Amino acid sequence: MPTHPLEEILHPRAIAVVGASNRGGGGPGFVAPLQELGYKGQIYPVNPKYSEIMGMKAYASVKDIPGVVDYVISSVPASQVLGVLEDCRQKGVKAVHLFTARFSETGREEAAKLEQEILELARKGGIRLIGPNCMGVYYPREGISFSSGLPRESGPVGLASQSGQAVHEIVDLATQMGLRFSKAISYGNALDFNECDYLEYFAQDPETKIIMMYIEGVRDGRRFFDSLRHTTATKPVIIVKGGRGGAGTRATASHTASLAGSVEVWETAVSQAGAVSAAELEELVDLAAAFYYLPPIKGRRVGVAGGSGGSSVLAADQCEEAGLDVIPLPVKIREELKAKGSAIWDWIGNPADFSIAWDDFDFGEMIEMMAANENFDFLILFVSGPWQRGASRSIKNLIEEHMKRFRLEEINKPLLVVFQEGGRGSDSDRTMQKMMNEIKMRLIAANIPIFPSIGRAARAASKVIDYYQRGK
Amino acid sequence: MPTHPLEEILHPRAIAVVGASNRGGGGPGFVAPLQELGYKGQIYPVNPKYSEIMGMKAYASVKDIPGVVDYVISSVPASQVLGVLEDCRQKGVKAVHLFTARFSETGREEAAKLEQEILELARKGGIRLIGPNCMGVYYPREGISFSSGLPRESGPVGLASQSGQAVHEIVDLATQMGLRFSKAISYGNALDFNECDYLEYFAQDPETKIIMMYIEGVRDGRRFFDSLRHTTATKPVIIVKGGRGGAGTRATASHTASLAGSVEVWETAVSQAGAVSAAELEELVDLAAAFYYLPPIKGRRVGVAGGSGGSSVLAADQCEEAGLDVIPLPVKIREELKAKGSAIWDWIGNPADFSIAWDDFDFGEMIEMMAANENFDFLILFVSGPWQRGASRSIKNLIEEHMKRFRLEEINKPLLVVFQEGGRGSDSDRTMQKMMNEIKMRLIAANIPIFPSIGRAARAASKVIDYYQRGK
Repeated sequence: MPTHPLEEILHPRAIAVVGASNRGGGGPGFVAPLQELGYKGQIYPVNPKYSEIMGMKAYASVKDIPGVVDYVISSVPASQVLGVLEDCRQKGVKAVHLFTARFSETGREEAAKLEQEILELARKGGIRLIGPNCMGVYYPREGISFSSGLPRESGPVGLASQSGQAVHEIVDLATQMGLRFSKAISYGNALDFNECDYLEYFAQDPETKIIMMYIEGVRDGRRFFDSLRHTTATKPVIIVKGGRGGAGTRATASHTASLAGSVEVWETAVSQAGAVSAAELEELVDLAAAFYYLPPIKGRRVGVAGGSGGSSVLAADQCEEAGLDVIPLPVKIREELKAKGSAIWDWIGNPADFSIAWDDFDFGEMIEMMAANENFDFLILFVSGPWQRGASRSIKNLIEEHMKRFRLEEINKPLLVVFQEGGRGSDSDRTMQKMMNEIKMRLIAANIPIFPSIGRAARAASKVIDYYQRGK
Repeated sequence: MPTHPLEEILHPRAIAVVGASNRGGGGPGFVAPLQELGYKGQIYPVNPKYSEIMGMKAYASVKDIPGVVDYVISSVPASQVLGVLEDCRQKGVKAVHLFTARFSETGREEAAKLEQEILELARKGGIRLIGPNCMGVYYPREGISFSSGLPRESGPVGLASQSGQAVHEIVDLATQMGLRFSKAISYGNALDFNECDYLEYFAQDPETKIIMMYIEGVRDGRRFFDSLRHTTATKPVIIVKGGRGGAGTRATASHTASLAGSVEVWETAVSQAGAVSAAELEELVDLAAAFYYLPPIKGRRVGVAGGSGGSSVLAADQCEEAGLDVIPLPVKIREELKAKGSAIWDWIGNPADFSIAWDDFDFGEMIEMMAANENFDFLILFVSGPWQRGASRSIKNLIEEHMKRFRLEEINKPLLVVFQEGGRGSDSDRTMQKMMNEIKMRLIAANIPIFPSIGRAARAASKVIDYYQRGK
């Protein structure tokens, strides 16, 4: 199999940042993030206004750089891009990431024309383009980053996004869930490489096990859905579509010059291709966490436990509304409870309400019985909620108590944990907050995905089941 | 108009807690919360096992109390309740709150029979009952509370809930939104006073301007919907229904012995009565905040501003999916921008994308133009999101910058603010968190409701508009 063109581009021997400055963060400051993530190749800042940038020698143009340059980041104004590209062509640069914006997304004829001229010049010079109007590449293993503070650790999630803001938001949310990225690429107007290329790249990339996409418009629908069908046979692909209605479509045009189509046609095609649709970025991350941490879930019969009173009732409603089957508590479990002398063996149900059961039996036993019972395909457990008040005990004790009460690390069935955060922002709640974070970290370390609400856990489980039930 | 029976009961001269103990919090510890909230009447702990409870003389029975007792909280086991009621009858007690549970909600015949005997004895003795199987009354102005840490301040929101856990959760969430309660009552199995009584009480209560309910089952549908129709003419009523499907209905039976009916019939009846349905407790609180802080919204045409890239695109989608009308940016605003020399006057749209506009014009001016434009019925603004990274400036400066950039306190149109929280839990994010909390508090102080996502803001706005458009 030939190497995918992006594979070579993503392992540059040297990166030049044209329009570099001493300012950190996004915008013109693309040098600092490369230093921060420890990019191993040469970094060449380019800006005729400076002799030194971020402690490194600055060059007046790409042509003045002494060594080889494979990859160039352009943050000069749109009017200067053709000149930069000509320099790159002469220098033998393989790829240019155009952070530079204000092209076709402005809706202006001359800007769209300039964009096409850039594409033609790039093609003539054998230069591939990422963007324009995008943040570019975050590839932690290679030490490539476009923003300060992105995690240094690598992971199995690949992300292609037309929006750079979405990459920031998704990486932040995913990091809180314990997920890490193989590569996350913001690709803006998709002038050269487009959504099909990124999808096909992640499909063949051995570092990527789960694929996330944020797409505003598809340039070649036939190729995209063919690739998608092919990819979903081996890797889950989760997609958020931006621009679903009239106003959203207007917004995609001015954001990345994308022409969004009918949302119904889109949803049908995504579903037929075996991919999973998410309505918003939070759901995208929920689904990635469910795919990453859980073994395949074979059916819809869920056991729910650990809630309290009204939260148990609403849990049942939200599971059913998400398309799950909240079966009655199996007779076998009732009989086991009765044999153990439980006073509520005939009363406790599914969801198993912790407020009923707290003085009757060890709740860990209930969860073990549910885990052992063949009638349940998977479990959703509440381990935290606003009903747990007054954290006067030491943090360590409460963590131990949580883990012991629910025996979560011993469960041998797909398990989603609902970790709802409450609290009124008082001082005692900050202690609670710290404790909750420790429990969260420990759950994640035990490969248990956590969700902030029963609704989000239930919807993620249901869509993951859809994926596995499509004949895989 | 005669005084509502609950009005007299809620102003007791003395409260006796039967089954009191020295343990704080919920469960048997109903004495401490009364002390904590500064209840002005006499508190009498009753428990034959103690001579002193929480620093107060304990009595062996209600009959042994020297003074008058209007209100009794029962946390003795179910088997002792008839005895307690007989004592109360002899003592002339007016109302008993039965925290005591394990009656009809167990599904057992003898428990349901005992519950009926309790009702008969109470009626014979002229005693009104709250519960059984509930947390009872939180009435901050009167100093009545059932749990430690509930706010001392009073407010305009009345809450009646079949679930005590839901009261805790709703009060916590609402407090974070700056809302306070007139009374919040958990009423469990609704043996004597039921949902109709609580609704009718709040309807006539001058301290209550907005009514929230969490209902698992309605005992008298005709009376309830008549009262509801009557009430919604003057006060918004927001209702979460627990037990919407098969499993949820089974759960309501074992939680509060409620028989939930068809969800479709319920939704239609609620809507026809002019009340507002919420799917979960978070939405209940979102809606209360929208009703409390916003003037009536007259139409669906929304101006959206302050998002960035993909978040602006998804904002448009989510507003439309919530039933709002995200109109194109009015020509008048484009002309004003052009006159001011904006380079993006023809490109910027609605949503107005901050990432496009940040170096072109003062974003506060855009919001002022939207606020002044007659084509918009209301505005939704993002003031915070994960794209705002690297809070190196002082907290105070960043708050000032936020408030100045958006000029939120000057806006003369219904305004919802989206305050999305991101961050990766690092140390710098804790500083960010503190800063964000300060901005939030300042927005709330300026009577601006805040929402954690565009979807929640849009859905709350849409349902509030539904309410006002039903011929009010």
